[in-house]
Amino acid sequence: MLSPELAARLGELSDLTATAGLLGWDQQTNMPPAGGQARGEVMATLATLAHERQTAPELGALLDAAQGDGEVERAIVRVARRDREKARRVPAELAAEIERAASDAQEPWAHARATSDWEHFCPYLKRNVELRRAYVDCFEGAEHPYDTLLDNFEPGLTTARVREVFAPLREGLSELAAAIAAAPPAPVLPGPFPVAAQRELALEIARAFGYDDASWRMDLAVHPFALALSPQDIRVTTRYHENDLQGLFAVMHEVGHGLYEHQVDPALARTTLGTGVSLGIHESQSRLWENLVGRSEPFWRHWGPRLRAAFPAGTAGLSDHDLLRAINGVVPGCIRVDADEVTYGLHVILRFELEVAMIEGTLPAADVPAAWNAGMRELLGVEVPDDARGALQDIHWSWGELGYFPTYAIGNVAAAQLWAALQRDVGGLDDQIAAGQYGAIREWLREHVHRHGRVVEPTELLERATGGGLDPAPLLAELNAKYRALYGI
Amino acid sequence: MLSPELAARLGELSDLTATAGLLGWDQQTNMPPAGGQARGEVMATLATLAHERQTAPELGALLDAAQGDGEVERAIVRVARRDREKARRVPAELAAEIERAASDAQEPWAHARATSDWEHFCPYLKRNVELRRAYVDCFEGAEHPYDTLLDNFEPGLTTARVREVFAPLREGLSELAAAIAAAPPAPVLPGPFPVAAQRELALEIARAFGYDDASWRMDLAVHPFALALSPQDIRVTTRYHENDLQGLFAVMHEVGHGLYEHQVDPALARTTLGTGVSLGIHESQSRLWENLVGRSEPFWRHWGPRLRAAFPAGTAGLSDHDLLRAINGVVPGCIRVDADEVTYGLHVILRFELEVAMIEGTLPAADVPAAWNAGMRELLGVEVPDDARGALQDIHWSWGELGYFPTYAIGNVAAAQLWAALQRDVGGLDDQIAAGQYGAIREWLREHVHRHGRVVEPTELLERATGGGLDPAPLLAELNAKYRALYGI
Repeated sequence: MLSPELAARLGELSDLTATAGLLGWDQQTNMPPAGGQARGEVMATLATLAHERQTAPELGALLDAAQGDGEVERAIVRVARRDREKARRVPAELAAEIERAASDAQEPWAHARATSDWEHFCPYLKRNVELRRAYVDCFEGAEHPYDTLLDNFEPGLTTARVREVFAPLREGLSELAAAIAAAPPAPVLPGPFPVAAQRELALEIARAFGYDDASWRMDLAVHPFALALSPQDIRVTTRYHENDLQGLFAVMHEVGHGLYEHQVDPALARTTLGTGVSLGIHESQSRLWENLVGRSEPFWRHWGPRLRAAFPAGTAGLSDHDLLRAINGVVPGCIRVDADEVTYGLHVILRFELEVAMIEGTLPAADVPAAWNAGMRELLGVEVPDDARGALQDIHWSWGELGYFPTYAIGNVAAAQLWAALQRDVGGLDDQIAAGQYGAIREWLREHVHRHGRVVEPTELLERATGGGLDPAPLLAELNAKYRALYGI
Repeated sequence: MLSPELAARLGELSDLTATAGLLGWDQQTNMPPAGGQARGEVMATLATLAHERQTAPELGALLDAAQGDGEVERAIVRVARRDREKARRVPAELAAEIERAASDAQEPWAHARATSDWEHFCPYLKRNVELRRAYVDCFEGAEHPYDTLLDNFEPGLTTARVREVFAPLREGLSELAAAIAAAPPAPVLPGPFPVAAQRELALEIARAFGYDDASWRMDLAVHPFALALSPQDIRVTTRYHENDLQGLFAVMHEVGHGLYEHQVDPALARTTLGTGVSLGIHESQSRLWENLVGRSEPFWRHWGPRLRAAFPAGTAGLSDHDLLRAINGVVPGCIRVDADEVTYGLHVILRFELEVAMIEGTLPAADVPAAWNAGMRELLGVEVPDDARGALQDIHWSWGELGYFPTYAIGNVAAAQLWAALQRDVGGLDDQIAAGQYGAIREWLREHVHRHGRVVEPTELLERATGGGLDPAPLLAELNAKYRALYGI
């Protein structure tokens, strides 16, 4: 048993995290636009308080005195010590400066993207990278400076390991994309898809996946995201466009994130371990539901008629096979968030390579666009027309977040590994999906992934669930099988 | 100038208040029902942190050292000292116990009201009253124990003064209500009023009053309320019923609260003084817009045609005069929140008298329903059919909030005083209202009430704005003139 004092301190940290989450969710879904300045101050105050509590000597003493007598309790103490140590290592002034620089960069980045003006953003990126390097310097013992950043999103993952995984992934995805590019293109969904009907269908699918009105809600946001304020208060967001079904797939994606948080063991509530273990494992959940379930043939065998009924004009003239091909069209493009399942990973690999070079100090901010455009040509065969559709497209670097992007591809890799294990452990998955039944999938994920929260480290979690470490082979096998069939290659 | 350290500490307290506000707003507008338990813990943590910061020795030292050199700065220090002293006087255990007892009483109160079972709620009220008496004992020097509670909502107001104001109010309202009861009844609005059209009309009126999309939002909530997260982030809520227009008037009411917060001097942001000065003055703003503007003849001269266009069936067959009479119908009833302008104050006076007796220890919780029913008979001539429609109807006592109710009537009294001053200072009010123009009213209120925030104490504020102290005469004059004309008495 944790001492009541330690449990109370961890509960407080957990509550502060939830509060910060609500402040952010509200800002993106509800806040009147003029409320932004005051909101920034409130969020800064909450961050300061959380940092203060995280680094308080009292917490240190309680953690030092804690005796772990069980896997969960040992994990609570281990993770709390690690969280605390990370907070303590970074001087308050540097932490504040990182926050401020990120905040200062938001408007310039938005303006630079709107005007495709790299020079306008360049000094802010330079500053953000400098500050991340200073951050890295607060920690010792990492083999590579980028390891320290990666570890904040994917505990235990190293740059070397990412390179080992990304090398065959890059080769496999490029090969497959090239083969697809040489084949006749897939048909395009004609549309339109009126938004009200999309929203209704999205909610139906979400409910079938596990969304319920007692514990979930769904809102609109410019950039879809999911947030758990507690396992019983899960909030997903999306945005719909009349000319495509991205909003629908965003819902499946975010419900995947939400189910992870919803199915964490309730006993972990307010321990700081009652949440997803890493961004990569989180992304594996969203991608599993979005891609491996939601873009599969049996899924559309079930939902196709419903889609046709909702959008008779938008689906007119397509056979079931062509509908499936249209939903799974592969077209190399400039924009990551619009990318298909096959090319998506290549966008991520490019960003990873550039980030590593920036942190190593071999790629100055001014040279990023040229490196970006060369990488896009090499990886995707795409010419970038301007920086707005190139190195300025993503918000992450304006936040100073380096080390985040790789987790998107790690998520796809892990999703395919978990899917293979699921197919091994649970029979007749295709039939269940074709029947609109997801209970067995949900239960397997609960048992092997969700319920553990942060108790089991990501590598160990994957090992226990799939029998192996991070491995791109199942993803490449899955994509090759699926797309070679769909494209007849 | 405040020292930067003091300004930062006060800013932090102000941010924590805003955060608690958002947690509460979200709970009442957005939170999935199953999220309640976790939300309770988060709110308790925030309350503990705020109490800790409020009572921190560092804040005390900064306040001791503060030199006030200007009205605003002196007020900041004075009010901050008072807020801090109030927090310090109450032992943390008692404060926590008060919170816990209030929380524990919610479900039993709801159940008791649903089943009209006073005995089920009685022990919780008893406990809440005991705790409030213990709270009162933490303070010295009050003439009457109830003064200490009043002061938390209406700084400087005393039980003796409330009695002085309520005695003639009680007499005047009773007389007027009796005269109206003897006259032929007003017509009733036939309805229905489809909710979508109500919502549209409410937003139009709100915008005419001063609501704008940059800084405001409007949501649904079971109990209408307003919240300011900052002067640029104002949130009003309402609920609509198809058979009446209460939701429309609730919007005018809540926009009145919102305008107060929206027009506080921006220089007071994050000083803890950038908000309304008391509940009574706040209520004067909501009542002014709801009743003195929104239920007036010139208001409906302007909006009547719009109402008829929105609800042709709901307003069918009523002349303009009958429409106005229907909107201003006076019917003594059991339920405070359904009460009209004339009888409303009597509901409040009853609650005040019972609360004072409870705090004095002369009215045990078990005897409240009998006293309530006798009071309703005496004050309103109404027979209470059951406790659900009697002493169990309001949530306030389940929260343990004693001293809150009187501010509702104080608000009506102050609204009429401010209205008389407005008529004196600004010419042609009726013509402006009949033209749908509210700018001059809004500006007068900004200048004389809103911009001051908590800088000027309520009594002084009223004195400066109206030339006198709290006085029920203008309200009684206003109601008598209006209702004797409407009822032809």
